[in-house]
Amino acid sequence: MPERLGPPLETPLFERVALIGLGLIGSSIARAARHLNLARTLVAIDQDEAVIGRVKELKLTDEATTDFAAGAEGADLIILCVPVGACGAVAEAIKGSLKPGCIVSDVGSVKGSVIAQVQPHLPPGVSFVPAHPVAGTEYSGPDAGFSTLFFNRWCILTPPEGTEDAAIDRVRDFWSAMGSNVEVMTAQHHDLVLAITSHVPHLIAYNIVGTAADLETVTQSEVIKFSAGGFRDFTRIAASDPTMWRDVFLHNKEAVLEMLGRLNEDIALLARAIRWGEGDKLFELFTRTRAIRRGIISEGQETPEPDFGRRRDGQ
Amino acid sequence: MPERLGPPLETPLFERVALIGLGLIGSSIARAARHLNLARTLVAIDQDEAVIGRVKELKLTDEATTDFAAGAEGADLIILCVPVGACGAVAEAIKGSLKPGCIVSDVGSVKGSVIAQVQPHLPPGVSFVPAHPVAGTEYSGPDAGFSTLFFNRWCILTPPEGTEDAAIDRVRDFWSAMGSNVEVMTAQHHDLVLAITSHVPHLIAYNIVGTAADLETVTQSEVIKFSAGGFRDFTRIAASDPTMWRDVFLHNKEAVLEMLGRLNEDIALLARAIRWGEGDKLFELFTRTRAIRRGIISEGQETPEPDFGRRRDGQ
Repeated sequence: MPERLGPPLETPLFERVALIGLGLIGSSIARAARHLNLARTLVAIDQDEAVIGRVKELKLTDEATTDFAAGAEGADLIILCVPVGACGAVAEAIKGSLKPGCIVSDVGSVKGSVIAQVQPHLPPGVSFVPAHPVAGTEYSGPDAGFSTLFFNRWCILTPPEGTEDAAIDRVRDFWSAMGSNVEVMTAQHHDLVLAITSHVPHLIAYNIVGTAADLETVTQSEVIKFSAGGFRDFTRIAASDPTMWRDVFLHNKEAVLEMLGRLNEDIALLARAIRWGEGDKLFELFTRTRAIRRGIISEGQETPEPDFGRRRDGQ
Repeated sequence: MPERLGPPLETPLFERVALIGLGLIGSSIARAARHLNLARTLVAIDQDEAVIGRVKELKLTDEATTDFAAGAEGADLIILCVPVGACGAVAEAIKGSLKPGCIVSDVGSVKGSVIAQVQPHLPPGVSFVPAHPVAGTEYSGPDAGFSTLFFNRWCILTPPEGTEDAAIDRVRDFWSAMGSNVEVMTAQHHDLVLAITSHVPHLIAYNIVGTAADLETVTQSEVIKFSAGGFRDFTRIAASDPTMWRDVFLHNKEAVLEMLGRLNEDIALLARAIRWGEGDKLFELFTRTRAIRRGIISEGQETPEPDFGRRRDGQ
């Protein structure tokens, strides 16, 4: 992965930044923040001893602990990098340690539910600026992270009404420093947008891979062999972290079911066009969808190389 | 794309090979066959003057013509590389030129329909060995091809009952020389296997991209911006050639509708699990699907690199 982060800041943006959960996202923030000198002191907090051990081996942070209350003590920025369903419990575990003026943030793929879980635990004088970096890979854990993960990716902030502008700006600066483009929207709109650009695609990918595995007329070995016909593209996101994604669907239920309903209507129309041999309808759709891909490429969110530029070495 | 084809053969496998249709697949065969010396004379046939002009500029073949009958004359191997729906018309156009002992083949993604279209036109003494190289990219046309497209990809042969073994072996040798692993199965089984590993994934990808483009609550610009959350993976195959794919669905109707029905049943179950908060069911599926991806990677049909090893330069 080419390194294109800027030089380290002369003065850190924050004195003490605590990251809770050192998986793919948390450990990528740690690497980027350390590289860019975004925090004078960087603290890793994780409930898993093995993860904390690995964080120490990799020297990702200045401090590393399984003690949530102690790790959060005195931090001026705390970022929850845990599965969406765990945010409420984490907020409860740290609420006694939050110093006045502290900013709490997160990286969850669902925002409405996280706000509902976290905000009741926060004392006055603490700001909550929920964030969602739209970036990731299909790998998990502290070894999977890398410092450029957020480079030229969007990070969406969904501050609840009444959040102080200064706190929003500081979180924006933090993500901008890591190379992200920052956008602000409501949590409700975020959850709808991500339902179609991320949650439903993952659900469909998990689903098609599951369906293929269950067929009695086609063996699993055949599915694997002949996957280069298109199927393998779906398996990448269907290999993503199961806990994270279970929580996403449970916590963005309404938007996901709404988008899935739309999708089903459209599939029914397509199936009908196939059944009745309506080639023109198929051709029209297949032409229209090319334009979207061109848009994604020209906006710098995708490589124009054939086949994603997949390396063929060793294949 | 690294070059890993073997050295050119000392003696060509065929005297005169005619490729009909010089798109991604036809032009990749031309490049590989030329590089490997698989044909003493390589002939390009295409109805499109512009394509033939380009083939000449790129010097892909020894001869290039828009005259189907003349181009096919005297060939000992003729490969139809046209959309599945055009195979019958092409067979009719060349039937008067087929010399005794000639082998006709194709590269279509559907086999039952191609056999039904082509076989009635072939005179006795001509063998038909349908083939399907399971390889491709989202790009089309004579400039999109490359000689290693088929390297370490599967090529499926579906010879109708009674096809001479010698003809099957010669086609097998042709594909093996280009680096493909060759497998033989019935046309019917092929069409079922490919429905799930290729056709339905394409249909779903076209569909989800179309649904996203039509939403009134989320703008197209938002879909494009936040596509790195998973959506962009689907847009690659939804950018594939519309004519080719229209024909695939029209000509593999039964298997596609059958597999789509399975998929819909499974989506309904998933939607129900989400609605009722059945996290265990989701978690179980999301864990199971990871194994399939590992199988595809260990079989050499996919790169293990995060994010397909997408190049991030310029993003």
